[in-house]
Amino acid sequence: MDHSGLFRNIREKRSFLCVGLDSEIEKIPSFLRKSKDPVFEFNRRIIDATNSYTIAYKPNVAFYECNGTKGWKSLESTLNYIRKNYPDIFVIADAKRGDIGNTSKMYAKEFFETMDFDAVTVAPYVGEDSVTPFLTYRDKWVILLVLTSNRGADDFQYHNEDGIRLFERVLTVSRKWGNTDNLMYVVGATRAEMLKDIRKIVPDHFLLVPGVGAQGGSLQEVAKYGLNSKCGLIVNSSRGIIFADDSENFDKTAGEKAREIQQEMELYLRQYKLV
Amino acid sequence: MDHSGLFRNIREKRSFLCVGLDSEIEKIPSFLRKSKDPVFEFNRRIIDATNSYTIAYKPNVAFYECNGTKGWKSLESTLNYIRKNYPDIFVIADAKRGDIGNTSKMYAKEFFETMDFDAVTVAPYVGEDSVTPFLTYRDKWVILLVLTSNRGADDFQYHNEDGIRLFERVLTVSRKWGNTDNLMYVVGATRAEMLKDIRKIVPDHFLLVPGVGAQGGSLQEVAKYGLNSKCGLIVNSSRGIIFADDSENFDKTAGEKAREIQQEMELYLRQYKLV
Repeated sequence: MDHSGLFRNIREKRSFLCVGLDSEIEKIPSFLRKSKDPVFEFNRRIIDATNSYTIAYKPNVAFYECNGTKGWKSLESTLNYIRKNYPDIFVIADAKRGDIGNTSKMYAKEFFETMDFDAVTVAPYVGEDSVTPFLTYRDKWVILLVLTSNRGADDFQYHNEDGIRLFERVLTVSRKWGNTDNLMYVVGATRAEMLKDIRKIVPDHFLLVPGVGAQGGSLQEVAKYGLNSKCGLIVNSSRGIIFADDSENFDKTAGEKAREIQQEMELYLRQYKLV
Repeated sequence: MDHSGLFRNIREKRSFLCVGLDSEIEKIPSFLRKSKDPVFEFNRRIIDATNSYTIAYKPNVAFYECNGTKGWKSLESTLNYIRKNYPDIFVIADAKRGDIGNTSKMYAKEFFETMDFDAVTVAPYVGEDSVTPFLTYRDKWVILLVLTSNRGADDFQYHNEDGIRLFERVLTVSRKWGNTDNLMYVVGATRAEMLKDIRKIVPDHFLLVPGVGAQGGSLQEVAKYGLNSKCGLIVNSSRGIIFADDSENFDKTAGEKAREIQQEMELYLRQYKLV
């Protein structure tokens, strides 16, 4: 899917929501644990309940890997389920990989060939050759970490050379490696005020914004500083949707939470004349 | 294994070699492809042939992940094989993970509980809470990326704030998170001259040094600038050992290559009076 495809889906659904499938096995409703693949069963029901309000799903790979080969099967089943039933939805492997060139090729092969994700999140520390192997795939995306939503973001991401902070350098250097159809950036919602500076450097790129909801970021602020003429935002919420309820009706509640966010998003899309 | 345990093994084997098990399936000798798990079979024979000359093995997880669940089985079988047959050898998961706190916990669980690695490589971009979940495990290590061996290292790692380059900041900030028994650093052999500056900041920590061999780093330079009073170095070679020969005798050749490096290492250990 390219930039226009994403914008088309956003306009159709009046939503730029991504649901984070951080499906930690200890946190899913206990009655599901009897099923053969509880994590997949949980995801399947979350997906069925939320797909009308979301344009993307983002499993964080850590929550699958930690269950070993069983976890990888849950991840593959989840991806295949989305592909089969909701083929227009963008699926992001939140893997935060990043290694030297010949190794990054293997990660690209994993997420784009062995599996069929649309996008992978990548950490920038290792530099250009950690990113470019992913960009050789048509219609696939790298989503590069720029400013993360956690406290630790302060440790290195603001390291300032002559007025240019590291996260800004990541933007100016990396935007030459790809284009607005294969490269987007992670900017935490908890750093919404920074979106103003970020939009000066990458006015047209899509930004993936985690940290709304449980982590405390404000959707209104994110929309104010981050929206561009083709929306340019994919805002992720995980725990606030998928773990809002641990009863037998967890999926219904998740759907309601997703719908609430979609409705707020629709307001902003109207306000900025994007729908 | 703690710092002293590592030094004891180094003195016993007169070696600070780590063999990188970057066992890309397309590169292993073709006659092995008939076996049930070719990657494990390749590793098993490499391990049997090289274990006398090496104190550590480092599978780069990318080369396993890219084969899906089969690849994870090869990785687990390899780790279990080393644990069972060569229990004193240090095993590093070269995974370059790094995510926000609640997610990093899952990666720690994966590599230290689901599997039983001694150490995991971690990328620093996300900051403190991406590292500390790994440090709560007794006798386990984080190996933090500082200066990588690739060309892309120039893109961000030298970003310079008031004379302090990013890689130096990573050292000064992160050394407070752990200690010399649970934290070491990756410094590429292709940046050997930088070891001088790095040793000023972390004189006592172990450094994991990839990039000797196929990538062109000089072992002599690494030893000159990197050795400390307890060795403090683990030098990795991958392709130069494991893919030196693709005949039926590949393991014998790998053993010889490892022995050559061990013998050069023994020279330096004697020269610096460490054995």
